[in-house]
Amino acid sequence: MSDTTGKVITCTAAIAWEAAKPLTLETVEVAPPKAHEVRIKILYTGLCHTDAYTLSGQDPEGLFPCILGHEGGGIVESIGEGVTDVKVGDHVIPLYTAECKECVYCKSGKSNLCIKVRATQGKGVMPDGTSRFKCKGKDIFHFMGCSTFSQYTVVADVSVVTVNPKAALEKVCLLGCGITTAWGAVTKLPGVEGSTVGVFGCGCIGLGVLNGAKFKKAARIVAIDTNPNKKEWAVKFGATEFVNPTELPEGKKIQDHLVEITDGGFDFTFDCTGNVHVMRAALESSHRGWGVSTIIGVAAAGQEISTRPFQLVTGRTWRGTAFGGIKGRTELPGLVEDYLEGKMKVDEYVTHERGLKDIVAGFDDMHKGNCIRCVVDMSQV
Amino acid sequence: MSDTTGKVITCTAAIAWEAAKPLTLETVEVAPPKAHEVRIKILYTGLCHTDAYTLSGQDPEGLFPCILGHEGGGIVESIGEGVTDVKVGDHVIPLYTAECKECVYCKSGKSNLCIKVRATQGKGVMPDGTSRFKCKGKDIFHFMGCSTFSQYTVVADVSVVTVNPKAALEKVCLLGCGITTAWGAVTKLPGVEGSTVGVFGCGCIGLGVLNGAKFKKAARIVAIDTNPNKKEWAVKFGATEFVNPTELPEGKKIQDHLVEITDGGFDFTFDCTGNVHVMRAALESSHRGWGVSTIIGVAAAGQEISTRPFQLVTGRTWRGTAFGGIKGRTELPGLVEDYLEGKMKVDEYVTHERGLKDIVAGFDDMHKGNCIRCVVDMSQV
Repeated sequence: MSDTTGKVITCTAAIAWEAAKPLTLETVEVAPPKAHEVRIKILYTGLCHTDAYTLSGQDPEGLFPCILGHEGGGIVESIGEGVTDVKVGDHVIPLYTAECKECVYCKSGKSNLCIKVRATQGKGVMPDGTSRFKCKGKDIFHFMGCSTFSQYTVVADVSVVTVNPKAALEKVCLLGCGITTAWGAVTKLPGVEGSTVGVFGCGCIGLGVLNGAKFKKAARIVAIDTNPNKKEWAVKFGATEFVNPTELPEGKKIQDHLVEITDGGFDFTFDCTGNVHVMRAALESSHRGWGVSTIIGVAAAGQEISTRPFQLVTGRTWRGTAFGGIKGRTELPGLVEDYLEGKMKVDEYVTHERGLKDIVAGFDDMHKGNCIRCVVDMSQV
Repeated sequence: MSDTTGKVITCTAAIAWEAAKPLTLETVEVAPPKAHEVRIKILYTGLCHTDAYTLSGQDPEGLFPCILGHEGGGIVESIGEGVTDVKVGDHVIPLYTAECKECVYCKSGKSNLCIKVRATQGKGVMPDGTSRFKCKGKDIFHFMGCSTFSQYTVVADVSVVTVNPKAALEKVCLLGCGITTAWGAVTKLPGVEGSTVGVFGCGCIGLGVLNGAKFKKAARIVAIDTNPNKKEWAVKFGATEFVNPTELPEGKKIQDHLVEITDGGFDFTFDCTGNVHVMRAALESSHRGWGVSTIIGVAAAGQEISTRPFQLVTGRTWRGTAFGGIKGRTELPGLVEDYLEGKMKVDEYVTHERGLKDIVAGFDDMHKGNCIRCVVDMSQV
């Protein structure tokens, strides 16, 4: 392999030219990393619902044309000036939630919502305000600071972390979003040991919460999903019970049923659906006096959650989490170790595998009931 | 004074015969306390908006005819069998939030929402299912387990606490609701010292939160109220700044203004209004990443709070509190000591004083902008 340092790399990427149109594979030019930037050869990427959401055009902040993808794993190809934490050849995971270790959020000890590159990331460009991608002479927007649907990508040095190379990137690429989001949301909460937990939705996020609740030794873990096929999955990941809301008597609300079977509600509930009605049900099935309900799912634009304030006045707490509250550069390597030590499932989420050439089919997989995660091999074009 | 133990006491009480009609003073018969009950000579009672709310008929759980009032101070006249924690002659405060020390809530260490007498209290009766009040031959419902608008009342032994007799009951009666609710809501929160606090509404509750925030050494305490006359009050109770939402440029949302002047929002906000729109503003003016917003105000029946779930996913927490999270029998005596030691304001809330004969005028006082609390002397008939 010739040295590509400092040169434009020509490779293949899936481009989202406009909203609600299928991705197309194109030859793109990826500029070398500038100061405090890292160019990564992406080997694998997971497909996440957020990619599909933005592609659908429903995301009002979606920018086109862009290169989607934010759940990737790769190897550092080259680094820009001033990059100190990763080096060429490192196995890395790009981070859509950066960690600069310097901003008010990073220093607060209370949040992982680093703002160092937030403004430019939201505008689809690198911190200097420009793009590193060109296709057919046009600048192509970055996405979530990652753009893992390209064989090469460039990210800010605060948006990437080196992980143990013993971990297969075709698996731990999934720690770039879904699994980490779920795992952090439950394992970082105090008091889960011995508690009762309700998990709404058994997709990748829900299964991750079930797995984390089991790891944290919750006493009773109830999975809730309208798809009966998810029962087996839920149990495999840690659920002690499964409830299908569609099987309740007509007119019976799921929260009322759950409060009954738990003698007052769950100590902890998690919305893993993105559906605002389910978010309400999750809150209202948490226990009077001390129930804590966490929103993990991302709702569609403009949708709002609501409840009677009495639900909160009587001791329930409504909170949310992004990327599971995990600080990517500080904590993600530890999660990879947890995986290597068998504490955290990762392999088990992969139900579909595709080559980059079949990424469009991969998006179709996502809408099938039997798909938890589709992992795309970026070398197959 | 003759010994009234075991006898029916005839005295004066303000009766709410039906919704939306003024209270009328009547002669009532107060039966002696049964086992685990306490009869109290009420000397003073505060008037709280919750009394006015139920009287207005808007409270769907309001029962008539009843004796309202839940912010009282008095002296134990007699006790039923099995009562061990209070004795005749004790200065006491009735507790609408009971504390049995035995139920799942009391034992949880996480909640003050005792359920020992909750069901019967909600039905306007004593734990045995009957009333101790009779007027014109009719049973009269109890209210919130207290009914302090009667010169004598009977409460469950889990619903009353003895306080230091050095504290004037005409003042500390207010600890039966408003002040305690506010004080507990802020002082029991971890992390207030050095923080920024936003308090929405400067009535009794809001002023109490300001006072508690100052006591806990918050660094910046902003009071928000549409009544400009509240500025002086707010500062007196601890506010470092006052914001009047009606003085903002047209179309400017209060939460946007507050986020601007606080460089991202408050560490802690409190709704002390009961207005669901203000509750939303309070949440949305708390800081991304770690803001905690507490609902203290009680909203009208059927009203709902709402927000975009993104507000929670980006790190804000929405919670509520009843009676400030204070366990009445365990913690209220300590608050009375705090008052006696000058740590907590109480006297300063009393803007109006009335005799029982003028209790109707006292209700009118409440709707005036200059009234924080009206205290009623039960001996003046």
